[in-house]
Amino acid sequence: MRKAVIRVELWYTDQHTKNVRFSMKVEQQIASCESEFQRIDILKTSEFGKVLVLDGELMITQKDEFIYHEMITHVPMAVHPHVRDVLVIGAGDGGTIRELCKYDTIEHIDMVEIDKKVTDMCLEHFWETSCRLDDPRVHMHFEESLRYVRMMKDEYDLIIVDCADPYGPAEGLFTREFYGTCYKALREDGILINQHESPYYSEHSRSVQKAHKQIKIVFPYSTVYQCHIPSYPSGHWLFGFASKKYDPIADLREDEWNRLGINTRYYNTDLHKGSFYLPTYVKQLLDM
Amino acid sequence: MRKAVIRVELWYTDQHTKNVRFSMKVEQQIASCESEFQRIDILKTSEFGKVLVLDGELMITQKDEFIYHEMITHVPMAVHPHVRDVLVIGAGDGGTIRELCKYDTIEHIDMVEIDKKVTDMCLEHFWETSCRLDDPRVHMHFEESLRYVRMMKDEYDLIIVDCADPYGPAEGLFTREFYGTCYKALREDGILINQHESPYYSEHSRSVQKAHKQIKIVFPYSTVYQCHIPSYPSGHWLFGFASKKYDPIADLREDEWNRLGINTRYYNTDLHKGSFYLPTYVKQLLDM
Repeated sequence: MRKAVIRVELWYTDQHTKNVRFSMKVEQQIASCESEFQRIDILKTSEFGKVLVLDGELMITQKDEFIYHEMITHVPMAVHPHVRDVLVIGAGDGGTIRELCKYDTIEHIDMVEIDKKVTDMCLEHFWETSCRLDDPRVHMHFEESLRYVRMMKDEYDLIIVDCADPYGPAEGLFTREFYGTCYKALREDGILINQHESPYYSEHSRSVQKAHKQIKIVFPYSTVYQCHIPSYPSGHWLFGFASKKYDPIADLREDEWNRLGINTRYYNTDLHKGSFYLPTYVKQLLDM
Repeated sequence: MRKAVIRVELWYTDQHTKNVRFSMKVEQQIASCESEFQRIDILKTSEFGKVLVLDGELMITQKDEFIYHEMITHVPMAVHPHVRDVLVIGAGDGGTIRELCKYDTIEHIDMVEIDKKVTDMCLEHFWETSCRLDDPRVHMHFEESLRYVRMMKDEYDLIIVDCADPYGPAEGLFTREFYGTCYKALREDGILINQHESPYYSEHSRSVQKAHKQIKIVFPYSTVYQCHIPSYPSGHWLFGFASKKYDPIADLREDEWNRLGINTRYYNTDLHKGSFYLPTYVKQLLDM
């Protein structure tokens, strides 16, 4: 008699709110570990390819990380006319670094990630994002970022806060003190970009509202732009654009950026402009 | 001894692809029935309020139907300078009609819905969308829409195809013959809007691609615009804008529309422009 073949069906669920669940079929648990700060898992899924999960929450997927990383990088890079020194906070997976390394004019990138284990895991299992971490311009610092930034003054043209959600290890990165520290670390025409969560579910929209309010107090120019990231809660994702001098639309160097011939799959300079035109309910939420 | 209180936990799952599930907690099954065409359910959920489900698939939710219905209606209404006669195909829930009824200049609305039971259920249980179906300008026809449109010539300024997904009862509404029939039913400066699915998951993106290709053959102007609808697969939703004469951006009557003082929560005339600036991967998919 032939034995029946039994296949285990695995599903990973990201809890978008306590009443909404987003589940993806898993083919294989690639790697898992417990760091000093959090539980780290890399799974292979049928629809999204590899996914990185921290403390049970979805961070990036192979299928749509390009949207997040292109939008957090190319929007400021197409506005600021001479970015030489960049600070990236968080970003342990390397995706933001990969996009920054497409610009030959960038001379120095400091990456400050609190959890070295995340980077080690991505270097081993998520080379799609970590592939440029060996660029000689990249300097990795595995330490607490608030302390790191406090020591800096007039150091950077661009700071990108590519950190996890505003609770857990990244909690201190969503306070007014932190934004003031970033302001000081930026040169006189510097730009600060930070990931801002989603405006849709009330548990996230409150943190968007709070972060935007505090950045607005610190920076002369402060606005928000949006994109579609299907694997994130609600799929409607916001980034904050705060700047000492440049306006993200009036100062967009459209022709100049297009002449660089940088290959992107989501970002283009028309979409750049469109991403700052927000729905009415989001403008009301942010008091814009 | 006190009895333990046991609460049943109900979850409704919309299968986004065969490998992705979107689940929402259900408080109550409000109404269910089987029509000649499909199974119809209205559920009360904790996060999305009431939701309408046809044959197990999510159609609209009380929390975000305003995004879908505003974007399918106000985009063409802010472009065409004198819409008097409108044909709406599908739209049995009444949401599109509710938005159209905000325009005093519209004189006549024909709504052609194949399944009267959907409208009856929404009139009884989903008054948030069905509230304007009693407007004297609205004429409801419960019949097969392809046959209905075939009889029309130079009849409408605007046709909105607000039908379900391109399989099941609405299947015939995604063919070239159907778009040609709509072309004939429109006046010489008419506009056709149709819901176009999502570009993200391959099972949907193929139908977007096919529909866009066929509309482009029939209409001189044909493009696509996007919005964020969190409860729909991927949250990234597209609409087709096809027109005999008007360009959706060059012919946008911005000041005129704003003077109307129409109350919206998603749509505004800046966002109108932004919604036509598509991500690079979507432009490539649609050969734009």
